[in-house]
Amino acid sequence: MSQYRDAAWRESMRVRVDFNNMMEDTLGKRGIAAAEIAALSPQLEKAAAAMEQKRPAMKWRELPYNQGEIVADIERTVKSLSWCEDFVVLGIGGSALGPLAVQQALNHLHYNDLPREKRGGPRLFVEDNVDPERMKALLDVIDPAKAVFNVVTKSGGTSETMSQLLIVTPLIEKLYGRDALSKHLIATTDESKGNLIKIAKQFGLKTYYVPDGVGGRFSELCPVGLVAAAVCGIDIRALLAGAAYMDELTKPRDVWKNPAYMLAALQFIAMRRGCNISVMMPYADSLKLMADWYAQLWAESLGKQFDLEGKEVREGQTPVKALGVTDQHSQVQLYTEGPYDKVVTFLGVDRYRADVSIPNGFAGIPDVAFLGGHTLYELIKAEQSATEYALCKSGHMSHTITLPEVNAFTVGELLYLFEVETAFAGELLNINAFNQPGVEEGKNAAYALLGRPGFGEKKAELDARPPRKECYVL
Amino acid sequence: MSQYRDAAWRESMRVRVDFNNMMEDTLGKRGIAAAEIAALSPQLEKAAAAMEQKRPAMKWRELPYNQGEIVADIERTVKSLSWCEDFVVLGIGGSALGPLAVQQALNHLHYNDLPREKRGGPRLFVEDNVDPERMKALLDVIDPAKAVFNVVTKSGGTSETMSQLLIVTPLIEKLYGRDALSKHLIATTDESKGNLIKIAKQFGLKTYYVPDGVGGRFSELCPVGLVAAAVCGIDIRALLAGAAYMDELTKPRDVWKNPAYMLAALQFIAMRRGCNISVMMPYADSLKLMADWYAQLWAESLGKQFDLEGKEVREGQTPVKALGVTDQHSQVQLYTEGPYDKVVTFLGVDRYRADVSIPNGFAGIPDVAFLGGHTLYELIKAEQSATEYALCKSGHMSHTITLPEVNAFTVGELLYLFEVETAFAGELLNINAFNQPGVEEGKNAAYALLGRPGFGEKKAELDARPPRKECYVL
Repeated sequence: MSQYRDAAWRESMRVRVDFNNMMEDTLGKRGIAAAEIAALSPQLEKAAAAMEQKRPAMKWRELPYNQGEIVADIERTVKSLSWCEDFVVLGIGGSALGPLAVQQALNHLHYNDLPREKRGGPRLFVEDNVDPERMKALLDVIDPAKAVFNVVTKSGGTSETMSQLLIVTPLIEKLYGRDALSKHLIATTDESKGNLIKIAKQFGLKTYYVPDGVGGRFSELCPVGLVAAAVCGIDIRALLAGAAYMDELTKPRDVWKNPAYMLAALQFIAMRRGCNISVMMPYADSLKLMADWYAQLWAESLGKQFDLEGKEVREGQTPVKALGVTDQHSQVQLYTEGPYDKVVTFLGVDRYRADVSIPNGFAGIPDVAFLGGHTLYELIKAEQSATEYALCKSGHMSHTITLPEVNAFTVGELLYLFEVETAFAGELLNINAFNQPGVEEGKNAAYALLGRPGFGEKKAELDARPPRKECYVL
Repeated sequence: MSQYRDAAWRESMRVRVDFNNMMEDTLGKRGIAAAEIAALSPQLEKAAAAMEQKRPAMKWRELPYNQGEIVADIERTVKSLSWCEDFVVLGIGGSALGPLAVQQALNHLHYNDLPREKRGGPRLFVEDNVDPERMKALLDVIDPAKAVFNVVTKSGGTSETMSQLLIVTPLIEKLYGRDALSKHLIATTDESKGNLIKIAKQFGLKTYYVPDGVGGRFSELCPVGLVAAAVCGIDIRALLAGAAYMDELTKPRDVWKNPAYMLAALQFIAMRRGCNISVMMPYADSLKLMADWYAQLWAESLGKQFDLEGKEVREGQTPVKALGVTDQHSQVQLYTEGPYDKVVTFLGVDRYRADVSIPNGFAGIPDVAFLGGHTLYELIKAEQSATEYALCKSGHMSHTITLPEVNAFTVGELLYLFEVETAFAGELLNINAFNQPGVEEGKNAAYALLGRPGFGEKKAELDARPPRKECYVL
C-alpha cells in the first residue's frame, strides 16, 4: 500500500503523453504550432478557472479520496462471495463499459476460460444488451444457483436493466424462494431516487450507491465499477490511488504542465481544423476495451447541439475504436491515405506482463527467418513505432499515451486522465459535458411503442408518421 | 439443399434494404432527393458498365459457384478432426475478421463456454494480434496436443502470422516430433507464391488455397473463411448459396433495382455532402462483428490517396462500429445532437432465434411494471424503431438492412451485398478498391526496425529522424 505514496515509485508508474507527432516541428504545415497553443491562452485560462470553480459539482473528482469506508465494505462483500461461480453485471452504458474495460486491462485475457483456482474470483459476465439470443445464451452457460447478479442503474429506471432484473428475479425465486434474492442480487443505484432503491429495500438487497454528481460515464471509480473489479480480484485501492495521482498531475492551470489539459487543447485545435474523428488505437489487447469506454466518455460528453448560451453549435468528435497491430491490416490504409479528418491516440505499454520468444526456424527462407530470435514484444513495439512513423510521414496527427506497465495504479491514472481531458474539452467547446439530452427522444419513442402509461402523445406522433415508401425498399 | 434453389424460399430469406430515412421525403432538406440520384445517372451507368467489364478480374465474385470440390474437401477435413478440441486460426486482417464475424453470427453466443457435446465442433480461437500477453494467455487455456492451428496468409509472408507459426511449430515438434506437424497444422495461402506454401510442402501440411484475384478483405467465402466455419459446424454450402442469391439480386444495372448499387450511390452522395463517417449499428449481438468485418472492407477499399488517373484525391469514409441497443447509451447522444457528418447503417433482424419473456413484477412501480408481459424481442425492436425515428427527427441520414433471420444463407447474402456495394462505391469514387498501397510504409518501417535484410536504407531513414522534443512529452 505505502508504495502508492512513495514519490519515486509513483513517478516510475507515471502515464506519459507524447504529442510530438501533433506538432509542426514534426508534421510540418499539417501540425500544430506552439504559437497556436499560445494564441489560445485566454480560452485555456478561462477553461482552467472554470474547472476549479466547478470542481465541487464534479463529484467524480473526489472518488479517489472519499471512499475509504465503501472500499472496506466492498472487500467484505467480496469475502462473503467465495461460493459464487459467476458474477453477472446487469447494466448498460457507463454501468457496463467501465467494468468491461478494467476487467480486460487487469485480468487474464482468457479469464473466464481459466479453471477456478487460477482465477482471482468468479467468472464475469457483463450483460449490456437486451438481445433475446444473448440472454438465452447466458442462461445456457451459467447456473443461477451459483450466480450473483449486480444490477446497476443510477436512475433505477433503465428499461434494459430493469427488464433483465424482471427476468432474473423469478428464476432465483423459483429455485430458492423470495428470501434468496438478497443472496443472489446486489443493487447499485442512487441512494434515494428511482425505482431500484425501492426494490432493493423491499427485498433487503445489499446495496451500493452512485453518488450525486457522478454521471454514468464518470462512474467507473465508484461502486459501479469497483464492485465487479474487486470481486474478480482486482486491487481497487491501487485503482483509486492511481486516479489520485493523476488528479495531482492534472491540477496545474498551465497546459504545458498538465497532460489532460494539453490533450484537450490539441484535440480542440484539431477539431477546429476539421478533424471530426478521434481514433483510439491501443497496442495491447489488455487496453482494447479502454477504447470502448473512452468512446462513450468522449461522444456523449462532447456531442452536443447547443452551447452553454443555448446557441446551436452541433459539436462533437466521433470516437473510433481500433487495435494495434490488428487494425494495421484493416484501418491504417485509410488512416494514412485518406482525408485529413482524424486524430489518432495510440496507447502504448513499456513493459508487457509477459513476453514470448520467436524461435529461430525456416532457415532457408530469409523473409521469415529474420523474425526468429526476436520476441513478440519487439515485434509489437516495432510495429507501433512504424505505424506512428507512417502516419506522421503522411501528415496525419497522432499522439501516444504510454503506461509504464498495465496495472491497477496506471489504469486508475488513465481513466482519470481521460475524464479530466473530457471535462476540460467541454469547457473549451463551451458546452455541458455532463448531460445527455439527445437520448430522450429515442427513449420516449421506445416507451411509447411499448405502451408505457403517460406516453400516449408520443405514440400518436409516431402513428402519424407517413408510411414508408415501397420504392425506397430494395 | 434444394430449398436454396426454391424461389419462394429464397424470397422469404431475402435481405432487404430500406433507405426511406436517407431521402428528402422523410428527412426534408437534409435528405437526398430522387432527382439527385437521377442526376448521377451518367456516373452510375459508367460504374455499372465497369463492374461488368471488370467482373472477370474480380475472382471473389465467382466464389459462390466454383468451389464444389473445395467444399467437399473441407467437409472431409472436418470429419477427420473429431479428435480436435481447439481450432486456432493464426491470421490477421481479412484472414481473421471474416471467420470472427461468421462464427459470431451463426454459432451460439457463448460457443466456447458450452460443453463439447453442445457445440458443433471444437472451440474456436482467432489470434489476430501479436501482443505477447495474448499469446501467453492462449497457451494457458489450450492444449496443443488437442489443437489444430490454421495458418492463414495469402502472401505467405505476413510477419504477425509467420511469427505465430514460428512459435507454434516447435511446441508441436517438442510434443510429438516433426511428423506431427501435418496433423496439427493446416495452411491456407497462395497456391504458388510466397513462403507459407514452401513450408507447407516441406512439412506435408494439408493446404487450402486463396485464389488469385481474391484479396484478404474479399476472402471470407473462400477457404480463408470456409474452413474455420465448417469445422465449427456452420453450413458453408448455405453460406455460398446465399452469396449466389445476392449475386443475382445485385446484377441489374439500374440502381433502383439493385440494393448494392443503390447503397453505394447513397453513400457516395452523402460523402460528397461531407459525411465522412459511416456507422454500422447492428441490433443483434450475433451481427456485432459484421461491423468489424465491414470496417476493414470499407476502409481499406475506399481509403485512397490517388484516383485511377493518379490524381491526389484522399478519398475515404471512416467506418465506425456500434451495437444496438448497447450504444444508445454511449454513442446516440452524439449521433442525434452532433454534426451532420455521418450515415448510420442499421442491421435488423425480423425473427431472432430465441425470445425471452419479461415476466410481470414490481406491480407497485408502474415505471418498471409496464415492461412485464413484453418480451426482449419486443423491447429490442421498439428500441431500434425508436432510434431510427430519433435520428430521422434530428435530420440525420440512416438506412436499415434487415435479415429475415440470421442463418448461413442470409449471412452469405449480407457478405456479398457489402462486397458488391464496396466495389461499386470504388467505381463511383474512381479509385482502385482492391489494393492497399498505404500499408507499405508502415510495413517497411517495421521490417527496418526488426533488422530484416534489405531494409538498411529505410533503417537509415528512421535513424535520421530528429529526436523527439522533451517539451512535447508530459
